[in-house]
Amino acid sequence: MDRVIELAHGAGAKETWDLIKELIVDKVPQNLRSFRGVGIDVLDDGAVIDLGSVKLVTTVDSYTVNPIFFPGGHIGTLAVSGTINDLVMMGARPVAIMDSLVVEEGLEVEVIERIVSDMLAMLSKYGISLIGGDFKVMPRNSIDKMIITMVGIGIANRPVIDSLGLREGDKIIVTGPIAEHGTAILAAQLGMIDKVRGIASDVRPLLELLTLFDNLGEHIHAARDPTRGGLAATLNEWARSTGLMVIIDRSKIPIRREVKEFLDAMGIDPLTVASEGIAVLAVSSEFSDQAIDMLRSLGFREASIIGEVRKPPSPLLEGKVVAITEVGGKTIVEPKALNLPRIC
Amino acid sequence: MDRVIELAHGAGAKETWDLIKELIVDKVPQNLRSFRGVGIDVLDDGAVIDLGSVKLVTTVDSYTVNPIFFPGGHIGTLAVSGTINDLVMMGARPVAIMDSLVVEEGLEVEVIERIVSDMLAMLSKYGISLIGGDFKVMPRNSIDKMIITMVGIGIANRPVIDSLGLREGDKIIVTGPIAEHGTAILAAQLGMIDKVRGIASDVRPLLELLTLFDNLGEHIHAARDPTRGGLAATLNEWARSTGLMVIIDRSKIPIRREVKEFLDAMGIDPLTVASEGIAVLAVSSEFSDQAIDMLRSLGFREASIIGEVRKPPSPLLEGKVVAITEVGGKTIVEPKALNLPRIC
Repeated sequence: MDRVIELAHGAGAKETWDLIKELIVDKVPQNLRSFRGVGIDVLDDGAVIDLGSVKLVTTVDSYTVNPIFFPGGHIGTLAVSGTINDLVMMGARPVAIMDSLVVEEGLEVEVIERIVSDMLAMLSKYGISLIGGDFKVMPRNSIDKMIITMVGIGIANRPVIDSLGLREGDKIIVTGPIAEHGTAILAAQLGMIDKVRGIASDVRPLLELLTLFDNLGEHIHAARDPTRGGLAATLNEWARSTGLMVIIDRSKIPIRREVKEFLDAMGIDPLTVASEGIAVLAVSSEFSDQAIDMLRSLGFREASIIGEVRKPPSPLLEGKVVAITEVGGKTIVEPKALNLPRIC
Repeated sequence: MDRVIELAHGAGAKETWDLIKELIVDKVPQNLRSFRGVGIDVLDDGAVIDLGSVKLVTTVDSYTVNPIFFPGGHIGTLAVSGTINDLVMMGARPVAIMDSLVVEEGLEVEVIERIVSDMLAMLSKYGISLIGGDFKVMPRNSIDKMIITMVGIGIANRPVIDSLGLREGDKIIVTGPIAEHGTAILAAQLGMIDKVRGIASDVRPLLELLTLFDNLGEHIHAARDPTRGGLAATLNEWARSTGLMVIIDRSKIPIRREVKEFLDAMGIDPLTVASEGIAVLAVSSEFSDQAIDMLRSLGFREASIIGEVRKPPSPLLEGKVVAITEVGGKTIVEPKALNLPRIC
């Protein structure tokens, strides 16, 4: 039987990376995997072009979220925030974006107006230019409402903080409560969003983190916004790519009560659920308290140390993520994403 | 009644530009319409970032073509060619691309493999790097098979050839037969492609034109690949933006007999139909014969002078495109696109 695309291939965890690697990355000739910098075999959705006097960072992401309006934001604020955050995680200051809108015949023009207007307000606030774009219409029933693809262009003065810098002893920090975006989208898709209180996407740009990177950059060994696949996917990727073990304490992970209760009721592990307004950092142990203080002064009031990086005590734990449960047991956290289509 | 998106809004002619201008371009603050270069108010889908030592050109386009495989190519070769051509038209040598694939649940993995494999072969041939990308899955019935959004990055050593450089006396040149891509897609969408012989998309990269631009760059005042909206849209945009009149002779325009017969039978003006493998140029009169010679030596054997730019003889003809018909009459060519959804 022919192998076909499944929803899990888009969930952002192991199935996604395995498929992209098989279909695309592995097939790109070695000499064409980057251009004067860092490319597709290191950063999946971003790249660095080193032009000598300036390091340009670029990123591309397609946003397919359903519904396009959700508690806490919409597809436009999600696209702008997600793009800004991808650049920030690479240590780059966003300077320009390009967007491509694919919309469905019959969509109210006023809906596009609202979305674009909010996008432009965000860009204006941060002084980011909109330098180009594309606009396509698809007939009714060939697309659901709207897809936005966004290109981000940033300038990095510092070395790019990549995901391969994890070191033994590093503390793992999250900048705020986890799993809020994915929970809001799940509740909306299930038609339950009006029945559950206090659940909303955390979608927002994380530009303040550039201040942290400016000050403590060399001590921050990895940074990522845990979107599709959640914390589980990010930490597993870090562990796997270094062979180290990441151990986290579930009781230390900030999460809103309403989010936890909703996910518990659904039997979903919050570690597998996407955020769109937090970052996870691996910070040199000696500077972790300083990082927490600075994060709190930057407005990340719930920033917390949730675990650390260790030498694996046995080969079985090489490249693995281990969680200390609320009752003191230990479990392995698999890179299994919440299999929710159109989460971002 | 609420105003809604219609297919014409995506056809690439006046309705598209009016809507984009109203919804997006006009709303971008003046200081955020470009970043160190040329931006959204001059080039729609491309931009120039002037970094002093190097001029970077970027472009973004979403490809939604239906069917994804068509005579002459598929969505992947279309995306690579279209992106390369956008850069070339801005006088830039393509150096890197990023792609974002949005695919439908249930699509055979082998289909993606074939498409990606052909894309990579084209990129390899021209030494263009694939430096990053995104991959999303949408559930069955929320998208039709696949959308590819492609970001192109090029380097321009020469001034960018923009669309505002049209001058009185310029000759209008097309590099080959027109309307082939749109005709092939139309025939395919109508289920007639097996019944009509000799119709195929002309989709291909036009990198050879960089040699022309290198040699005659300052005498080429405008260059564009007439995709959505065809020659009619491109020439009207050039005329409108300068207030000059463009006059073309229909009998001089290269077009394959099979394409002309098919479009005649359908009552469609070939001037409104998309190409994906030709360019239209406005060339200084004294250098137009030299340009034709060079184009022919570069392999564009049917390159032809089809008209010229004139001072409008009356205010009614300011910014208009006039065609001399096969029987010697004159008609105004409106920027009306063939209203064919998912042409590219």
